[in-house]
Amino acid sequence: MPVIAIDLGGTKLATAVFSEEGNILYEEKVALENRKGSEVGALIAQQTKKILATQKEHPITSIGVSVPGISYQQKGTVWAPNIPGWEDYPLLNEISVVAPNIQVMIDSDRACYILGEVWQGNAKGCTDAVFLAMGTGIGAGLLVNGSVLRGAHDIAGAIGWMALEKPYHEKFTSCGCFESRASGDGIAKLARELVEKTESYDGTLKDVEPGKINALDIFGAYEQNDVVAKEVIRQCIELWGMAVANLVSLFNPQKIILGGGVFGPAIKFIPDIYKEAAKWAQPVSIKQVILEPSALGYCAGLYGAAWLALQNKKAT
Amino acid sequence: MPVIAIDLGGTKLATAVFSEEGNILYEEKVALENRKGSEVGALIAQQTKKILATQKEHPITSIGVSVPGISYQQKGTVWAPNIPGWEDYPLLNEISVVAPNIQVMIDSDRACYILGEVWQGNAKGCTDAVFLAMGTGIGAGLLVNGSVLRGAHDIAGAIGWMALEKPYHEKFTSCGCFESRASGDGIAKLARELVEKTESYDGTLKDVEPGKINALDIFGAYEQNDVVAKEVIRQCIELWGMAVANLVSLFNPQKIILGGGVFGPAIKFIPDIYKEAAKWAQPVSIKQVILEPSALGYCAGLYGAAWLALQNKKAT
Repeated sequence: MPVIAIDLGGTKLATAVFSEEGNILYEEKVALENRKGSEVGALIAQQTKKILATQKEHPITSIGVSVPGISYQQKGTVWAPNIPGWEDYPLLNEISVVAPNIQVMIDSDRACYILGEVWQGNAKGCTDAVFLAMGTGIGAGLLVNGSVLRGAHDIAGAIGWMALEKPYHEKFTSCGCFESRASGDGIAKLARELVEKTESYDGTLKDVEPGKINALDIFGAYEQNDVVAKEVIRQCIELWGMAVANLVSLFNPQKIILGGGVFGPAIKFIPDIYKEAAKWAQPVSIKQVILEPSALGYCAGLYGAAWLALQNKKAT
Repeated sequence: MPVIAIDLGGTKLATAVFSEEGNILYEEKVALENRKGSEVGALIAQQTKKILATQKEHPITSIGVSVPGISYQQKGTVWAPNIPGWEDYPLLNEISVVAPNIQVMIDSDRACYILGEVWQGNAKGCTDAVFLAMGTGIGAGLLVNGSVLRGAHDIAGAIGWMALEKPYHEKFTSCGCFESRASGDGIAKLARELVEKTESYDGTLKDVEPGKINALDIFGAYEQNDVVAKEVIRQCIELWGMAVANLVSLFNPQKIILGGGVFGPAIKFIPDIYKEAAKWAQPVSIKQVILEPSALGYCAGLYGAAWLALQNKKAT
C-alpha cells in the first residue's frame, strides 16, 4: 500500500507517492514563491488533497512530512525559521482536515535526512549514524540505537551551534560558531573578508562583486588554484574535521553521511576531512566510522518523509 | 529482593548490597594496591563470593558492575586503560563462575554515573540527561530517551576527545583536546606552565614544587586571589562552558550533572559555566537545561551498578 511523502523546503514544496519498496510512483514540485504563514499551510493542504485524489485505486492510509525546522511532536506544531509566521504553526491539524482518517507524521528535515539514508541510501543497515547537513545552514540528523534522537524538547541535533574556536566572537551570535564559519554562507563570508583583506590579490574571485561571492564561486576558484579559495577550503576542512571528530567521539557511529548543498562540491574533500578528524577523535572510534556522501541528495528529506509514513502505518 | 552492586575504580573496589528502594544495606571497600590483570579479576570474584555468603536469608538474583573503561556488552569483556592487562578482559565470565544462576550486567562507569543520578540523584525523572565526569580524565554518561547511549561499539561518550580549540596541538594526542586542557590533570599542567612562564610570579603556587602542583592546589590558591590560579580557572570555565554548550546543542537534555573529582571544588563555578555556555549554545535549548552538581558524588557508580542489577532482574 503506497504512502504520501511531503517535503517542505525553504523555497519549494515536493509531494510524492511512494511504494512500500521505496519507488517514487508520482512526484510534484511547486515553488513557495512569496507565500508565508497560513498561505504555506494552505498550499500544503491543497497539494495533499490533489495527490490524494490521484490515488483512488490504492487508498492512502499514511502521510509523512519533512519540515525545515522543528516538529513539536506532542503539540503537532512546527517552528520553521525561514517561513515567516511559522513560530508554532499547527501543521498537523491543517493536513488532518484535508486527510481525515489518515495517519500524519511530521518530523524535522534533519531527522528525515538520516531516516531516508537508512531506508534507501548510504546508511542502510546502520543503527547508529549521523547525517551532517551542510547548506546555507548546518544541522545534524542523529540516529542512535535505531531511533532518531530528538532530545527533551525536539531540538537535538543543532550542530550549527557547536563551539569549535575560542574565544567567543560576536559573529557567532546569530547562528552559532560552526555554522557562521563553515556553512555555505559562512564560506562565502570568509572568502569576501579575505578578498578585501588581501591587497595583492588578483585571483578569479576578484571578478565577482565582493558582496556576491557564494560558495559555488569558491569551489570553482579552488579548481583554478586560487589562493583565497585554497585558504578558505583549508580552514573549512579543519572545522568540518573537528565537527566530524566530535560526532565520532560522542556518538561512536557506524557512518557519518555528508550532505546538503555544500556536499555537493565538497564531496571531493571527504578523505581530507577524515584525515583531519582522525587527529582529534577518540582513536578507536574513528577507525570504526565510515564517512560517505549522501546517496539521495536533494531527495533525502522526501525519502525520510516516506519512511515516517511507512513506520507510522506499521505501528497502528 | 536486594541486589549486589560492584564499582571498580582505578585504585579501589567497592561492593555493596542495595535494597530495591535504593538503600545501601551493606558496603565494603578494598584498595587495588598493585594488583593487575587477572589479580584484579580474582579480587572481584573473591569479594563477590564473600558478599554473596552474607546474604543467605535473601538470596541474590542479580549483580550490576561499573567498570572504569568500556564494557563490550556482546562479548562480556572489559577494556580498562588504568588496569594493566585489561584490554579485553573476560570479566562477565569471571563473575559468573562464582555467582552461578545469577544475572550479571556490566557497564562503563560513565553510563553508571548517569543511571545512578537518574535513579537516586539529581537527574530523577529525566529522560534526556548527561553526567559530565571530570576528574583525572573526562567522560560523559549520555541518557537519551530514557536509555544509555552506547554507540555502535559501546564507546560513545568519549567527550575528553572533544575538539574545542584549533589548530591541533601535539599535546592533544594522548587524551584529546578537552581532557588535555580541562581535566584535573590538564588544569595542573596549565598551572605548571604558567608558573614557569610568569617570571614576576610570587603567589602561593610558587611554594609547591612545580612538577607536583595538582588541581586542589589551584582551587586553594584561587581562594587567595592567586593570579595564576585565576587565569587557569578562567580558561577552564571557558572550555567547560563550550563543552556544556555542545552537549546542549546536540542532545537538548533536561539536565547536565557535573561530577567527578573536579566537581568537587569547581561546583561554585557552575553559574559561570552556565553563563559561558549560554553564549555558545542553541539559544532555545540552553534555556531548557539545568546544570547541577552530582548528588551522589563518589557513590554515583555504585548506585548506577545497583540500578543495572535491578533493571536486569526486572527484564528477566
